[in-house]
Amino acid sequence: MSGLAEWVSMNNILQTIHSPADIKKLTIPQLTQLAEEIRERLIVGVSKTGGHIGPNLGVVELTLAMHYVFDTPKDSFVFDVSHQAYVHKLLTGRQEQFHTIRQPGGLNGFMLRTESKHDCYGAGHAGTSLSAALGMAVARDMSGGSEHIVALAGDAAFTNGISFEALNNIAAQTKRLIIVLNDNAWSIDKNVGAIAEYLHKIVTNPTVSNLHDRAAGLLEKYGGKTARHVVRKAEEAAKGLIGPGTLFEEFGLSYFGPIDGHNLPLLIETFKFLKTQNKPVVLHAITQKGRGFQPALEKQKKFHGLGPFDAETGETKSAGQKTYSEIFAETLTKLATANEKVVAITAAMPNGTALDLFRPHHPKRYFDVGIAEEHAVIFAAGMATKGYKPFCAIYSTFLQRAFDPIIHDVCLQNLPVVFCLDRGGLSGDDGPTHHGLFDISYLRGVPNIIHMVPKDEDELADMMYTAMLHDGPSAIRYPRGTGPGVAVKEQPVALTIGKAEVVQDGSDVAIFGLGAMLPEAARLAQMLEREGISAAVINPRFAKPIDSECVAEYGKRCGLIVTFEDHVLAGGFGSAVLETLNEQEVQVPVVRVGWPDQFIEHGKVDALRLKYGLTAEAALEKARPYLAAMESRRMALR
Amino acid sequence: MSGLAEWVSMNNILQTIHSPADIKKLTIPQLTQLAEEIRERLIVGVSKTGGHIGPNLGVVELTLAMHYVFDTPKDSFVFDVSHQAYVHKLLTGRQEQFHTIRQPGGLNGFMLRTESKHDCYGAGHAGTSLSAALGMAVARDMSGGSEHIVALAGDAAFTNGISFEALNNIAAQTKRLIIVLNDNAWSIDKNVGAIAEYLHKIVTNPTVSNLHDRAAGLLEKYGGKTARHVVRKAEEAAKGLIGPGTLFEEFGLSYFGPIDGHNLPLLIETFKFLKTQNKPVVLHAITQKGRGFQPALEKQKKFHGLGPFDAETGETKSAGQKTYSEIFAETLTKLATANEKVVAITAAMPNGTALDLFRPHHPKRYFDVGIAEEHAVIFAAGMATKGYKPFCAIYSTFLQRAFDPIIHDVCLQNLPVVFCLDRGGLSGDDGPTHHGLFDISYLRGVPNIIHMVPKDEDELADMMYTAMLHDGPSAIRYPRGTGPGVAVKEQPVALTIGKAEVVQDGSDVAIFGLGAMLPEAARLAQMLEREGISAAVINPRFAKPIDSECVAEYGKRCGLIVTFEDHVLAGGFGSAVLETLNEQEVQVPVVRVGWPDQFIEHGKVDALRLKYGLTAEAALEKARPYLAAMESRRMALR
Repeated sequence: MSGLAEWVSMNNILQTIHSPADIKKLTIPQLTQLAEEIRERLIVGVSKTGGHIGPNLGVVELTLAMHYVFDTPKDSFVFDVSHQAYVHKLLTGRQEQFHTIRQPGGLNGFMLRTESKHDCYGAGHAGTSLSAALGMAVARDMSGGSEHIVALAGDAAFTNGISFEALNNIAAQTKRLIIVLNDNAWSIDKNVGAIAEYLHKIVTNPTVSNLHDRAAGLLEKYGGKTARHVVRKAEEAAKGLIGPGTLFEEFGLSYFGPIDGHNLPLLIETFKFLKTQNKPVVLHAITQKGRGFQPALEKQKKFHGLGPFDAETGETKSAGQKTYSEIFAETLTKLATANEKVVAITAAMPNGTALDLFRPHHPKRYFDVGIAEEHAVIFAAGMATKGYKPFCAIYSTFLQRAFDPIIHDVCLQNLPVVFCLDRGGLSGDDGPTHHGLFDISYLRGVPNIIHMVPKDEDELADMMYTAMLHDGPSAIRYPRGTGPGVAVKEQPVALTIGKAEVVQDGSDVAIFGLGAMLPEAARLAQMLEREGISAAVINPRFAKPIDSECVAEYGKRCGLIVTFEDHVLAGGFGSAVLETLNEQEVQVPVVRVGWPDQFIEHGKVDALRLKYGLTAEAALEKARPYLAAMESRRMALR
Repeated sequence: MSGLAEWVSMNNILQTIHSPADIKKLTIPQLTQLAEEIRERLIVGVSKTGGHIGPNLGVVELTLAMHYVFDTPKDSFVFDVSHQAYVHKLLTGRQEQFHTIRQPGGLNGFMLRTESKHDCYGAGHAGTSLSAALGMAVARDMSGGSEHIVALAGDAAFTNGISFEALNNIAAQTKRLIIVLNDNAWSIDKNVGAIAEYLHKIVTNPTVSNLHDRAAGLLEKYGGKTARHVVRKAEEAAKGLIGPGTLFEEFGLSYFGPIDGHNLPLLIETFKFLKTQNKPVVLHAITQKGRGFQPALEKQKKFHGLGPFDAETGETKSAGQKTYSEIFAETLTKLATANEKVVAITAAMPNGTALDLFRPHHPKRYFDVGIAEEHAVIFAAGMATKGYKPFCAIYSTFLQRAFDPIIHDVCLQNLPVVFCLDRGGLSGDDGPTHHGLFDISYLRGVPNIIHMVPKDEDELADMMYTAMLHDGPSAIRYPRGTGPGVAVKEQPVALTIGKAEVVQDGSDVAIFGLGAMLPEAARLAQMLEREGISAAVINPRFAKPIDSECVAEYGKRCGLIVTFEDHVLAGGFGSAVLETLNEQEVQVPVVRVGWPDQFIEHGKVDALRLKYGLTAEAALEKARPYLAAMESRRMALR
């Protein structure tokens, strides 16, 4: 090949891939080159947009081999969590828009059925791919279809109970389903528990490793011809070595592996072989998270998913101000130092919840239970029966997983478990799977629980202290990222449960600004005051029990109530205000500001608030008719 | 022993058991006699009260042996689901009240922390015991305690994902935890899936069986002295025979068994041995559901849990009128006959949901996935992506388990899955773990879903037909037991989505009676009419989307709105009416009738409605001040 042709081929293969059909024309060297181009594109692209860089660098060859052997959209790929679908997006006609990923109006950071016919199933929470893929496989069998269903799931997904519920059903329901276990020994943090150890045991078995090295060597030497034979032999031998009953075999699946998840020819031949199987199969592929980008290899946790970074060095801008998560972790560390009954529980998110800052101070009171929110909550309830005070730090959206244990194990038994709902409110770039917009409506109906929302960092600390002292269940929701930057005082104070804080008194309009929306409430008050209208500003603090006395008092005094919440309107805080006014038999108009009854796309929080009317300006607009009516009444009274 | 002494001892041992301490004084023959007395007491007692007879007859010896070897309340017994805790209740100072079980004001049918210090953990939903027990074990380890934690879980609990999330954590967290796997190969229906097959494989292994027969023989011959040695040898040999890596061993637990769960001396010696272990252990005990009662052995499904029956023959009174569940199953059978895309999914409740009536008609479109509500919903979503129309029949209280998949997999992707929420509303005798009082509040906040509540059997059929035709997610809630007994017409009709039915027009008061509460709404209307007040009666049909036009119209026309719902008030239907009036800018007083913000005890539905004010009379009382105000306004206008 001439230098020029080489240069062109070196830099242009990705540009020629308009659909998966184009991949099938390539030779192994071209595919290898394509893998490098994809890595380059991922690093440069995600360094600008932010996103899940590590997981995607790990599945470049896996995704290429899958698209080489199978045919989407006829065949279906179900990606678990689907944060590792960037390569798939690049290969399925979306490379032109790739620079828009996670940007407002751009590509979603996860699989999205409405985005492409190649995205057959969306996700964002772990552990769903096996169940969804089984549903598709059974549907195919019933319809007499011939297409392949391939589920790609990380090892961490196997710490989640849903994966096991699916495994329990697969062998009885279908004979054709391909599960790819993408084993990089990491979820977001290092994996924990028996499953992780089990996989580690397989992978580190020296005989198995040797065998696979030999298989790979033979493939390189003799090429595709003998490949199928070699793979089969290697896999069968490996199975024999590990023992007749691996975990997956006991679930009635055929287990193949472990194989090198970066060896393209081996992957291709293996997938071709698995296509022919008449039994559900698990392919155990070992991959390296962050492969091809040294900073990501060195800091796997950081580079799981992050904001923009330097494409050369991997450096990120220092956040400067502490996040709510960090304030939470620091406060919990302090509380635990003073109270030996305080323990911390995370469901595989020590980094996201910042509990990794707590851990070194109280290593024996730190529990990472894996991606297992239900277990986390019931485990906490069990500890609470023995006098402990568990703080479960779980994102608002993930706590949806534990709704039944919250009711059945914690609230019904009135046990003092504290739920710390990080990412409460719109999460922004991650989109609808990660917005935390439902927690007030799903928790407000449950007896015994207290639901708090702090206005700033210092109040978060006070609420945690209040929760620690309270002999019953409580929840605290706080937003993603940073707050107003208020310093946390040395010693937290206990808040009176069910008591709101009147930030500013007023007589014409009362504005309730829940948590992060308090600044909008204050802005609206200023706008009203400029028009000569006296506005009270109230920090409700408690979504449950709501301060009914305060609500009733302002309802009687004022001609209008306005509520602001970073939550859906249906069943939310404003709804609780309406119920309270109803119970207190107070008739007053209420303008409720919050998210409408639809799923909200990904984007920048401020822009989305503007678009959906969660601003002081939009509230003023909605309040106008009532203000006009108040004014005419006032004029009439003169 | 003289005839008289024999008679006394034969009939009086149970009466001498006031606490577990009394059990420890007994000899093996006395314990064996006690087991028989307990069985007699269970059969006679539960034949009058109704309850979970089969499971309790199966655990008589297990429970006796546990109390013989361990010391509650110092030691903790965590019973999974805890419907098998009747024997435990009889042995822990509650035999005097045993005739009140599941009766109003009497003993709860499940473990209840507030009922006894021997009930360390309550339950009602399956799969929670391992997580809770692990929480307790870790708490004990941290506190330096020496007590034992014993979890007793049926084999069906192991089809639930939470059990696996717990198994994944146990070995890493504690060295002392005893899990008793009570294997009777049944949950409520015959168990399904890989775990069931795996356990069956162990139990039916002839070598294992022989070995255990021999061990039992030796024990009988030589008694307690050699027992520990025999048990250890038998267990270790059994482990070797099955293979080095059983499923439980792969999770880092020591596996012992299978052993005969009715052999008291063997159980006692085994528990004594397990107490000494310094590793978490699983004891696999084989029991017979319904043991000692021929009708229960013959009809295991029927005698899992049921109403009163004849203590001799096991016969129950014919229900006569068809239940809502039966109407559901018959309608689904019809829909499936006409539409080949209709499929039925149950999470181990074919009997409770009546899907066992559907199954013979469409065996290939019937799916029992085990106690795996999350998997059930995601599996349904997967099928829906391939054009199928899955009907998931899950009790309202159990669907709480699948809240996140409902949001994340079904509603966000707007897939046409139909949730049929049996036992929507107060469930009665089973108590707070089984009441279905939260589904409107937890589903109403979720975009895209439709939530319907039928007024009678025929409307249930219409709603199912409407759901089948609708291209998006929907939920239908219907109560436990029978409805008004309305005949279902031959061909269902499609309802207009979001449109209420005006049952009776009126001008002074508008009464909305949701589902089963419509008769109370009609009664209230009659009471008002007797006082000369014109009352409209409305069947809302849709809790979401609510008929906002209808609500606004009556809100403007009438001086008072009354809402009735068999649901908590917080975030419920009445709350949706308040939100609608707020959105439509209509000011009118609203009296909301529903369950208060507290957990409701078990009891008879009518009595509890009376106690908590869910009646026309109570509503009238609440409406009085508004009616008086209306009257004075009317007088003033004359």
